[in-house]
Amino acid sequence: MAKVRVGVAGYGTIGQRLADGVALQGDMELVGIADLAPTLAIRALRENDMCGVNNVPYPLYLVDGADRSAFDALDIPVAGTFEELCSKVDVMLDSSPGGVGAKNKEIYKRLGVKAIFQGGEKNSVADVFFHGYANYEKGVGQDYLKLTSCNTTGLIRTVDCLDRAIGLEKVAITIIRRVADPGDYHRGLTNALQMDKAPSHQAVDLMTIMPHVEATGILVHTPVTHGHIITVLATAKDGKKITRDMALEAFRKHPRIRTVTTDEGFKGNASFFKYARDLGNRRGDMYEIGLWEDSIVESGNDIMYAIHIPQESVTIPETMDAIRAAMKMQLTREEGTAQTNKYLGIGRFKR
Amino acid sequence: MAKVRVGVAGYGTIGQRLADGVALQGDMELVGIADLAPTLAIRALRENDMCGVNNVPYPLYLVDGADRSAFDALDIPVAGTFEELCSKVDVMLDSSPGGVGAKNKEIYKRLGVKAIFQGGEKNSVADVFFHGYANYEKGVGQDYLKLTSCNTTGLIRTVDCLDRAIGLEKVAITIIRRVADPGDYHRGLTNALQMDKAPSHQAVDLMTIMPHVEATGILVHTPVTHGHIITVLATAKDGKKITRDMALEAFRKHPRIRTVTTDEGFKGNASFFKYARDLGNRRGDMYEIGLWEDSIVESGNDIMYAIHIPQESVTIPETMDAIRAAMKMQLTREEGTAQTNKYLGIGRFKR
Amino acid sequence: MAKVRVGVAGYGTIGQRLADGVALQGDMELVGIADLAPTLAIRALRENDMCGVNNVPYPLYLVDGADRSAFDALDIPVAGTFEELCSKVDVMLDSSPGGVGAKNKEIYKRLGVKAIFQGGEKNSVADVFFHGYANYEKGVGQDYLKLTSCNTTGLIRTVDCLDRAIGLEKVAITIIRRVADPGDYHRGLTNALQMDKAPSHQAVDLMTIMPHVEATGILVHTPVTHGHIITVLATAKDGKKITRDMALEAFRKHPRIRTVTTDEGFKGNASFFKYARDLGNRRGDMYEIGLWEDSIVESGNDIMYAIHIPQESVTIPETMDAIRAAMKMQLTREEGTAQTNKYLGIGRFKR
Amino acid sequence: MAKVRVGVAGYGTIGQRLADGVALQGDMELVGIADLAPTLAIRALRENDMCGVNNVPYPLYLVDGADRSAFDALDIPVAGTFEELCSKVDVMLDSSPGGVGAKNKEIYKRLGVKAIFQGGEKNSVADVFFHGYANYEKGVGQDYLKLTSCNTTGLIRTVDCLDRAIGLEKVAITIIRRVADPGDYHRGLTNALQMDKAPSHQAVDLMTIMPHVEATGILVHTPVTHGHIITVLATAKDGKKITRDMALEAFRKHPRIRTVTTDEGFKGNASFFKYARDLGNRRGDMYEIGLWEDSIVESGNDIMYAIHIPQESVTIPETMDAIRAAMKMQLTREEGTAQTNKYLGIGRFKR
Repeated sequence: MAKVRVGVAGYGTIGQRLADGVALQGDMELVGIADLAPTLAIRALRENDMCGVNNVPYPLYLVDGADRSAFDALDIPVAGTFEELCSKVDVMLDSSPGGVGAKNKEIYKRLGVKAIFQGGEKNSVADVFFHGYANYEKGVGQDYLKLTSCNTTGLIRTVDCLDRAIGLEKVAITIIRRVADPGDYHRGLTNALQMDKAPSHQAVDLMTIMPHVEATGILVHTPVTHGHIITVLATAKDGKKITRDMALEAFRKHPRIRTVTTDEGFKGNASFFKYARDLGNRRGDMYEIGLWEDSIVESGNDIMYAIHIPQESVTIPETMDAIRAAMKMQLTREEGTAQTNKYLGIGRFKR
Repeated sequence: MAKVRVGVAGYGTIGQRLADGVALQGDMELVGIADLAPTLAIRALRENDMCGVNNVPYPLYLVDGADRSAFDALDIPVAGTFEELCSKVDVMLDSSPGGVGAKNKEIYKRLGVKAIFQGGEKNSVADVFFHGYANYEKGVGQDYLKLTSCNTTGLIRTVDCLDRAIGLEKVAITIIRRVADPGDYHRGLTNALQMDKAPSHQAVDLMTIMPHVEATGILVHTPVTHGHIITVLATAKDGKKITRDMALEAFRKHPRIRTVTTDEGFKGNASFFKYARDLGNRRGDMYEIGLWEDSIVESGNDIMYAIHIPQESVTIPETMDAIRAAMKMQLTREEGTAQTNKYLGIGRFKR
Repeated sequence: MAKVRVGVAGYGTIGQRLADGVALQGDMELVGIADLAPTLAIRALRENDMCGVNNVPYPLYLVDGADRSAFDALDIPVAGTFEELCSKVDVMLDSSPGGVGAKNKEIYKRLGVKAIFQGGEKNSVADVFFHGYANYEKGVGQDYLKLTSCNTTGLIRTVDCLDRAIGLEKVAITIIRRVADPGDYHRGLTNALQMDKAPSHQAVDLMTIMPHVEATGILVHTPVTHGHIITVLATAKDGKKITRDMALEAFRKHPRIRTVTTDEGFKGNASFFKYARDLGNRRGDMYEIGLWEDSIVESGNDIMYAIHIPQESVTIPETMDAIRAAMKMQLTREEGTAQTNKYLGIGRFKR
Repeated sequence: MAKVRVGVAGYGTIGQRLADGVALQGDMELVGIADLAPTLAIRALRENDMCGVNNVPYPLYLVDGADRSAFDALDIPVAGTFEELCSKVDVMLDSSPGGVGAKNKEIYKRLGVKAIFQGGEKNSVADVFFHGYANYEKGVGQDYLKLTSCNTTGLIRTVDCLDRAIGLEKVAITIIRRVADPGDYHRGLTNALQMDKAPSHQAVDLMTIMPHVEATGILVHTPVTHGHIITVLATAKDGKKITRDMALEAFRKHPRIRTVTTDEGFKGNASFFKYARDLGNRRGDMYEIGLWEDSIVESGNDIMYAIHIPQESVTIPETMDAIRAAMKMQLTREEGTAQTNKYLGIGRFKR
C-alpha cells in the first residue's frame, strides 16, 4: 500500500516535532516542510545537511512572503514553494502561527488537500475538534481536523481513561502551566505567578470533545519552561465512588500515561525532562504524560490526581492519530492509536 | 487596664512581623525580642537605633548559646537574657526555628508564662491548634496555643467564611506555593515545579481545626518568592448548590479577605506585593489574603475559587487574636478579631 | 526662603519614588503628581486618602487623554489638569514613559517651567546630561536636565569616586541586570540569560558624563527582579597602580555607597532588598548602592570590584541634586549633594 | 591496534556524557560504568535495554556500598563490582561525587589502572592538572590527570587561543553562572543573584594551567539552568594592542569555539540549548562553547568578549584528549585534539 504523503507547514517548536513524528511512521512519507525565514531550527537542518532537494529527509519549501535570498546567502537549499509542497501531499499538518492556518486553508481547499490544524487556530477552521483517544471515530474520513492544545490533549487522556473505565460526570482542574519553552526570548515571567480569568479554555475545550462531562478550571502561569502540572478532581456518574485503586488500575493500562512516584526520583516537571534526556530521546522529548501515583487521593466519592504535560511533544501522537483518521488508514481508535504507538515507540517502557 | 506584656522569641521573617504587630496593638506592650546571632534583621534594628535598653522600642535579649561578644563588637546593645525576657512578660510569641519552640516550652512552664507557637512546631506542643476566625473560643484562657501555618491560615479564612454562610461538607485544594522568601539564599528552586506527596498537610490541618469538613489536596512548589496561590473546590452540605453570587457575597464581607479582579491590575501574586509597597505598608506586607472575583466558577453544585497568601505576614493577625484569646482580653471571636483588625488597620480598604 | 515647588509627571515605579523623595526635602514642596489612568499606584494613593484636593499630600492631576470618568467611578479625587499642575510649579520631574517627556517639554517651554527628565528620554531632550556627584556644576541654573539611568547613576558614583581619589583612565564593565521590577507582568525572562550587543549604553553614557575616562562593557539580562550587579575593572591614569586598600578607603567615605561583605549576610542582590525591608524603609527601597568589600581584587595595576544597584530607587537622590542645581538652591556639588543626603537620611548608617 | 579500554565511575550528569563520548571514539572501548544506586539515569539505561551483561553497550558495575537487591527488584542487570570493572580497563574516568575520586584512587593504584578525575576533586589527586589545548603535552604518559572544571575548560579554550595567536599578559573575568542543571532538585536559587568571594577559583585554576598569564575574576550565581556566560577582558604582552579583528580571526579558527551573533538568533545561553536540541544532538548537548561576535569590543589596548559554557558537556572533549595523552595514543596537542574532534563530530559546523 502506498504511503500517505504528509507535509508540515511551520517548522517551529511543534512543526519540528511533527516532522520527526511523521518520519517515524512506517506507513507515511514526509514530503517536506514549509517555513518563512532561516530560523535557528532551519539553520540546524542545514548544519545537519537535512534540508534540500536531493533525497534528503526534510526538503524545505518557502511560504509566500519568504525572502529567498536570505536562504541563498546561508547556502540553504530550497525545494520549492508552499503551493508546490501542498500539491504533492495527501494531508498537510498546519503548525503555522495562530491565524495563519485559517488563511492556508484556502490553499488546501483549492488544491483538495486535507489538513490538520494545531490548537492555536479557532475551532471553526475545522470540521472536527479531535482527540485520538476520546473521539477518533468522529475524525474518520474528515477533511479538516483541529487538534486539542497541549494541556487539553494530556488532560483528556486521563479523563477519557477514567470515563471509559468508570463513567464520569464532572471534572474540576487547576492548571499550573509553564510560561515559555526552553530557548524562548519573546515571552517570559520573572518571579511571578499569573492568573487567567476562569474558567480556563482547557476546561471548555474538554467539554467540546467530551460533551457528557461538565468541566471547569483555573489556570495559573508559572515561571518555568519544562512542562505543565495539572491537578484534576473527577466525579463519577450517579454518585458512584472512585477509589484510589480503581483510578490507578485504569491509568496504568494507558499506553500514553506514564505512572511514576516521587520516591523513584520524579520530583516534579523537570524530572521528566531530565529522564527523557537520560533516555537519549531526540530533543529530550517525551510523548507520554506523567502521572504521579502518590498524588492520587480520594475526596469523598471523588478522586484527585496530578499529571505532567510535556508541552512541546505531547500533541504529536494525537496528530499522527488524526492523519490516520482523516486518511481512513485505520477506522477505529483502537487500531489507529495502536499503530501510532507502535511507530513512536510508545508503551515500550516497563515499570 | 494594664497592657498585656508580650515577648517575641526568634526575630526572623515571622518574628520581626510579630514584633511590629504587637507594637501596633494599643492594649499590648512589646517587652522585647530574643535571638541568637547578629543577623541582618538585628543589624537593621541597630542601624535604626531600635534595639537596646533605654526606652527603645525593641529591646534585645539573647537566647542561650548566643555569643555576646559578637553583639558587642557591632555595638549592638543587649537588654538581657532570654529567661529575663520571659520573666517580664505575660505571654511569649515563639517564632523560633522548628523544634526549638518545644524546648523553650520548658522555660515557659517553669516561669508560668503563656506561649503561642508558630506553625513550624508539632501540634503536641500546644493545648489548642488555633485559628482566630474558625475556633477562637477554644483558645480562650488556654496556656499554650499553636497557630496554623501561613497557607492554612489564609485558606481557613475562606473555608470558615463559606461554612458559616452556607455550610460546607468538603473541600479539595491545590496549593501553588512559593519556595523561598525574598532574600532567602538557603533554599530555592530553579526552573522547576516540585510535587509533594498528597494529601498536603494543609488539608489535614484544616480538618483538625474544622473537623466537620473533609479536606484533601495536592501541593506544588514553584520558583517564586511573593506568596502562594491556592485553588479551592468547596462542596456544601446536604447537596446544596453554592452559586457564584453566594460565595462572592460572603467573601466580600470578610475583613481579612481582599477581593480583587485581574482587570484592576491584580494579575497574580506579585501584584499584591507591588500594591502593598505602593500603599507604603511596612516591609511591603499585607495582612489580608487576596481573592480573585474573576476566578470564582461553579462546578455543578460546587464552587471553585483562587486565593493569594502573603506568606510573610498572613499569620500576624491570627497570632494577635491568639494573644487575646489566651489572655481572655476578649471572650468571643467577634470581639477578639475586631480588636485585632482595628489596631492593624484591617478592613479600612474601600472597594 | 520660599520652598521650591515641584511636580511629578508619571506616577509609575520612578514617579512614586520621586514624589516620596520631594516630600522629604525640607526646602521643597510637592505640588502634585500627574498620570493617565487609575493604576494600582493611584488606587493605593486613594486607599491611603493621599490624593485629592484638600491639603492632601499628593494631589492628582490628569494628563491629556485621561478618562476622568474612570477616576470618578472609583471615587478618586482629581485636582486638575496637567497644564494646571505645570503652571503651579518651578520645576517638573518628568518620569513619563519613554518619548512622552519630549512631548511634554513643549508644554514646559511654553509655561516657562524647568524640567528634569529620567533616563528613558533621549539625551537631546535636555541641555545637560546630569549626575549629582560627577558634574553637578554643569547643571547649575540650567532649564532642562536629563538624569543618567539607574545602572549608570550607581556605576558613576564609584567611578567618579575613584577618579577623584586616584585619577582614572579607563573602565570595562559587565552589567548583570534584572529584567523586570517586582510586580511586573509586561516583561520577563524565564530560565534564560540574554545578551545585548556590546558596548552597553551605560558605558557610552559614562563617557558622556566623564569624557576623560574611556569606557566599554557588556550587558547580560538575568531573570531576577531585585537589582543589578555590575563588575568594574578600573585602570588608573599614567600606569599608576590602584591597590585594594586605596579603593576601599575611597569607597568607604562615599555617603551613597554602602560597603558590605558576604560574611555579614549580604550574599547577593536580594540581601539588600531584604535589608531595606528589615530597616522598614518605605517600599523596601534603598538610596545607596551596595559594594562588596570581598569582591575587590587587584588585576595587575588595575582594580576590580562588584556593586549592587537598587534599580527602583537609586536615581532619586541624584534627581533631588538636579533640582538643587537647576534651581540654584546650592551652587556646588558638595553643598547640593549634602543637602539631598540630609533630607533623605543618607549617610546615617554605621559600620 | 587494540582499542583502549575505558571505564566510567559515577553515572551522573558528567558520567553519562563521558560514557557517550567514549562510545563515539573509534579507537576506544567503553567497558562499563559504575554507580551506587538505581537513579533515574540508570533506570533510563534499563528502559533502553542498554545496561547489563550480554554485549549491551553500557554494562553496569556496582560500587562498594551499593544495595544489589534494589537493582534486582527493578530487574536491572548488573555486570559485576567496581573492582572487577577496574581490572578490565586501561583507564578509568572518575566522575564520582567530589572527594570519592580520591578514595577510588587507592583502588586504581593497587590495580595499576590510570585515571582521569573531574574538576570536583582536589588538584593533589592528580599528577597533572590538564587541558587538551593548553597543556596536552604535560599529560602525555602520566598516570593521574585532573580535568579543569566546566567554566575553566571553556574559558581556557579562548584564553589559550588568544595567547597562541597574540601573546597574553593578563585576563580579568566575570562569570555569570547557572546555579543548577536541568532536573536538579537538590540545589537552586529563586529570584536572586549570589556573590562568591573574589577571586573566583576559575581565575586561580587558569593560572595553574597557564602560569605565564595573570588572572583574576568575580563570580555571580544566577537562577538559570542552561549554561554560563563569562565576560573576559584580555591584555596582551608588552603593551601590544589587540584589535577586534585579530581576536575574531583567532576565535573563528578554533574547532571548539562556535562563533555566533545575536542577530542570527543566539540571544543568550538558552539559544544554544535550543539549537543543540534542534540539531538533534543527544541529550541536547553541545561540545563547543559559544562566542558572541557582537560582544567583542576594544578597551584601550585590551579586548573584551563574552562566551557561553554548556556546563553539562563542555568537558567531554578535553577528557577524551586526556585519555589520548595519558595512554600516549597521540603525542601532541594537534594530533590528540584532532582525533577527539573527529570522533565527536566537532568542527563540522559551517558558518
